[in-house]
Amino acid sequence: MQQDRIRYQPLLKKITDPVTAARHIKDGTNLFISGFTAGYPKLIPKELAKRAKEGENFKINLFAGASTGDAVDRLLAEADVVNWRRPYMSDPVMRNMINEGEIAFKDDHLSSLASLVRSGDWGDAHVAVVEAVAITEKGALVPTMSVGNTPTYVKVAEKIIVELSNSEPPELAGIHDIFIPEDPPYRMPIPIYRAADRIGKPFIDMDPNRVVAILFHDEQDSCPVFTAPDRISQRIAEQILDFVRHEIKRGRLPNGLPWQAGVGHVGNAVLGGFMEDSFFDNLELYSEVLQDSVLDLIDMGKVRAASGSALTLSQKARNRFFNELYRYREKIVLRPVEISNSPEIISRLGVLAINTAMEIDIYGQANSTHVMGSHMMNGIGGSGDYMRNGAITFMVTPSTAKEGRISAIVPMVPHVDHSEHSVDVIVTENGLVDTRPLTPKQTAAQIINKCAHPDYRDILWDYYQRALKQRGGHEPQLLSEVFSFHERFMKTGDMRINIPK
Amino acid sequence: MQQDRIRYQPLLKKITDPVTAARHIKDGTNLFISGFTAGYPKLIPKELAKRAKEGENFKINLFAGASTGDAVDRLLAEADVVNWRRPYMSDPVMRNMINEGEIAFKDDHLSSLASLVRSGDWGDAHVAVVEAVAITEKGALVPTMSVGNTPTYVKVAEKIIVELSNSEPPELAGIHDIFIPEDPPYRMPIPIYRAADRIGKPFIDMDPNRVVAILFHDEQDSCPVFTAPDRISQRIAEQILDFVRHEIKRGRLPNGLPWQAGVGHVGNAVLGGFMEDSFFDNLELYSEVLQDSVLDLIDMGKVRAASGSALTLSQKARNRFFNELYRYREKIVLRPVEISNSPEIISRLGVLAINTAMEIDIYGQANSTHVMGSHMMNGIGGSGDYMRNGAITFMVTPSTAKEGRISAIVPMVPHVDHSEHSVDVIVTENGLVDTRPLTPKQTAAQIINKCAHPDYRDILWDYYQRALKQRGGHEPQLLSEVFSFHERFMKTGDMRINIPK
Repeated sequence: MQQDRIRYQPLLKKITDPVTAARHIKDGTNLFISGFTAGYPKLIPKELAKRAKEGENFKINLFAGASTGDAVDRLLAEADVVNWRRPYMSDPVMRNMINEGEIAFKDDHLSSLASLVRSGDWGDAHVAVVEAVAITEKGALVPTMSVGNTPTYVKVAEKIIVELSNSEPPELAGIHDIFIPEDPPYRMPIPIYRAADRIGKPFIDMDPNRVVAILFHDEQDSCPVFTAPDRISQRIAEQILDFVRHEIKRGRLPNGLPWQAGVGHVGNAVLGGFMEDSFFDNLELYSEVLQDSVLDLIDMGKVRAASGSALTLSQKARNRFFNELYRYREKIVLRPVEISNSPEIISRLGVLAINTAMEIDIYGQANSTHVMGSHMMNGIGGSGDYMRNGAITFMVTPSTAKEGRISAIVPMVPHVDHSEHSVDVIVTENGLVDTRPLTPKQTAAQIINKCAHPDYRDILWDYYQRALKQRGGHEPQLLSEVFSFHERFMKTGDMRINIPK
Repeated sequence: MQQDRIRYQPLLKKITDPVTAARHIKDGTNLFISGFTAGYPKLIPKELAKRAKEGENFKINLFAGASTGDAVDRLLAEADVVNWRRPYMSDPVMRNMINEGEIAFKDDHLSSLASLVRSGDWGDAHVAVVEAVAITEKGALVPTMSVGNTPTYVKVAEKIIVELSNSEPPELAGIHDIFIPEDPPYRMPIPIYRAADRIGKPFIDMDPNRVVAILFHDEQDSCPVFTAPDRISQRIAEQILDFVRHEIKRGRLPNGLPWQAGVGHVGNAVLGGFMEDSFFDNLELYSEVLQDSVLDLIDMGKVRAASGSALTLSQKARNRFFNELYRYREKIVLRPVEISNSPEIISRLGVLAINTAMEIDIYGQANSTHVMGSHMMNGIGGSGDYMRNGAITFMVTPSTAKEGRISAIVPMVPHVDHSEHSVDVIVTENGLVDTRPLTPKQTAAQIINKCAHPDYRDILWDYYQRALKQRGGHEPQLLSEVFSFHERFMKTGDMRINIPK
């Protein structure tokens, strides 16, 4: 059994237990882990948390592919052993500690991280802890359900701890496409011309001499499961599909551009929309995180290729996926995040990018990260990679949050992650605005009238009209009251002036 | 003489006068012109302005490569014949009309425009007016001192008017490298691997049947001439060179990355700095606009290659350039702006990008476009292309403007063009902050203490400390007073509280 998973004989002697393995991680260790929603290590984080609970005083600097969920971020945050964390995370406990200044966090574009690590910017890469389904005959690593930054972490780390997962079959091999680009100034083009292209190896090259421990576990990823799309997400998705269909029919957009849909309800609703729409066929996805709906689309014969950095499946979809792995493996490619999110590839392929913002202002600037301007939510993730480089970029949001008490359309967002220059189309459940042929003033009028929730239209329009008259300019704003919506919410718990009974 | 310039015989009969040629341009014409600081048409704009002055009532939609100076933007704005203008412009008269809403303007990333035009997003491309030094034997076009969007404009326009310039020699041929990338989804990599690479033709393909008029003129570009760098620009440049030298010596940055320096004093000062610094040698420039200092560096043998979309020279440098054209032509490549500013190439080459902001906030967000948040200055130009994709991105600004009455470091910028995620290093004459290894709070403390002008340090620090205590979070901001600096300036004409006597 163990020989099935560790085919490079000399490494058999590295099999050990979590306690022994985790001893390589000490106070001050720079720890680089696998994981991008899925595929994170299951044992070492638990052991570190246990040590902290038992009274050991230590802090690590933690670098992942992106979010790693309860089993890592939550656990290590609660254990208070994290000094630095980069990049994107989405755990509420860790988020609070970041906002309290108890965990240092910097919000990197996901695509940039691996090359920064290779440049040695963060000091020594002490230990990598990576999940895998197998070690090949030559000592290379076959990852599990995500690739993330693992190829680079394995390349640079002084010590490597491998967690072999028994809950994914070795037959997963072949789904991954591992390619580490050269670094400037001698970087050559990344030779991906279509979403399906495979340009690398099906495993991660690894120096077996740096492997200090191998563990086995039977645990599965605990991925957030997205329920069936709600009415609002469906309405947003319908409008996007209508718009793209219209652009294609008008001859202004070629058919066949690949799609990226950020994680979550709207992304799922868009993919759901494809199922019911015969216009969309032969689809290519060039995205980050692939979810259940991708399997459905493959089953319907609608998908030519689905490329991402992670496969985040519900329990039900997971069983289906492993049962017919041979079939899905032909369509699905899992890549390093610096490739799935590569600006070069996104702009070359002309990706139709759909990302969700927390709030959008009347001129199209979007806030994806900072609640009320100050408090970190999750991070920019890959949205900046796609929004800056896609062929048409969609920024979507339900028009309100907190049962209508927050408007997602505001005079000015108090934190900008995506500037108007990089946001093409804005969509809420109420309407869609293509800002590309519009001046900022035309954009403002349309966003207020089409996208904003009816409860907020009047006060937005009133604000905009006064800004127009009192201040003027290309993008009129009254700086003294531009955040009045946010201030009202912080004072009264509601952005509305007249609250419906 | 005419045959020297028009080597394709059938086009000789198209030679005409500006009055006749300009008749192709009417009310509602979508007019696409050459020009990117240099290389704009000299005759047709004048004729259009004359017609307006004589009482003809018409409006055109004007698309250029970027700014076109007094001779086009100023003239046509004053004549009030411009309905739409895209992209970047820098003329004060046009700027005022944009802010007054008399001219419609949308601020595109320079790299995106050509492919948008090819997609037909703006309706029919009626007329292109392009400056050239010659028409080749096969009817292709040799442009003058810039390329901009001319290849695409010539490709899509129904009618083409050529202005042949006698003030540049036909020997300019060979300096240009014309490559129009395919459009998605069948776009192949742009095969540039080094700044010097030539991948296209030395002329612009043109269908001679669409040429409706050819004019001759003797006028020169009237380019803004940058004087010797002031002390502040020199101080900013010195710090950038020190920082890069330090990073290379520490082994965190490879030697040999190409440089981009935005137009203006700091860009010139950086290039000036290279002349006096033996550490920097064998330089490659991958930039937008090349200026006088590039010739100096070439003369010193310090430049391996200089790539841009335009060559903007002072009168003195111009003479020198044409006298030894054969020598400069070997080192200088002029490209379409979608290539000089291509995100794909900028990220592949790992460009060190230096761009100037109007103001930067304590968390590193930058405003490049909107004065006091509402009034358009010039536009984002190519800064977004470089800042989002460069290997290390520098955002620079003198710490104050208007004799100290405006601080360029503020609590929050009232318009964001470049988010913190895309701004690596911030530099004023007072100091440099590398934000890459810092949390936002560390960034704020360093920007206030190192970059801000001493006159503003105390009030910035006071604001930041109160935001930290009263609001907290990842990027503490007090929304009720976050624009107090700007409001004070609009009220009193000075951002300072205690104005030094």
